Amino acid sequence: MYGLIGRIRAIAGQRAALADVLLEGTAAMPGCLSYVIAEDPADDDALWITEVWDSAASHQGSLALPAVKDAIARGRPLIAGFDSRSETRPLGGHGLHLA
Amino acid sequence: MYGLIGRIRAIAGQRAALADVLLEGTAAMPGCLSYVIAEDPADDDALWITEVWDSAASHQGSLALPAVKDAIARGRPLIAGFDSRSETRPLGGHGLHLA
Repeated sequence: MYGLIGRIRAIAGQRAALADVLLEGTAAMPGCLSYVIAEDPADDDALWITEVWDSAASHQGSLALPAVKDAIARGRPLIAGFDSRSETRPLGGHGLHLA
Repeated sequence: MYGLIGRIRAIAGQRAALADVLLEGTAAMPGCLSYVIAEDPADDDALWITEVWDSAASHQGSLALPAVKDAIARGRPLIAGFDSRSETRPLGGHGLHLA
């Protein structure tokens, strides 16, 4: 498995709009086992995104999906920057299911 | 929903043992929507733990479950420290299911 944990900073006032774009664009991605969008309660502009994929190739492939490309295009103007991005190797747990 | 994203550092050489303890002890927790244990590919001693709960109360309540108390007791001697711990407010996504 392949995982990502990242924190994105939205442009001031645009966090909810960015979250909506990400939630809409990532609903059906082959090989995706978990994809969670969360607000940072300590920062009004920050979102956490945690992802688990069956492989790094599936994650890479998702970037070519029309819905994901559309979400990237619509989300980009709402993003001020990327605070952190960590790759992980998920071992297991609860909540890992193919869409 | 209530979320946690944390990084734990195991005592050198004990990461796999710590991961096993955490995976065994957290299999059936009421109110848990997602619980993923992952290795940090950049640090041989570090584990990422990402959690989503239906409420903060469910997370708090899990700490009193016998299986979780047992995992904490068995895991504690394997832990060198906690690198980071962030609370989140999950909004949605894929892979959020009650056990």
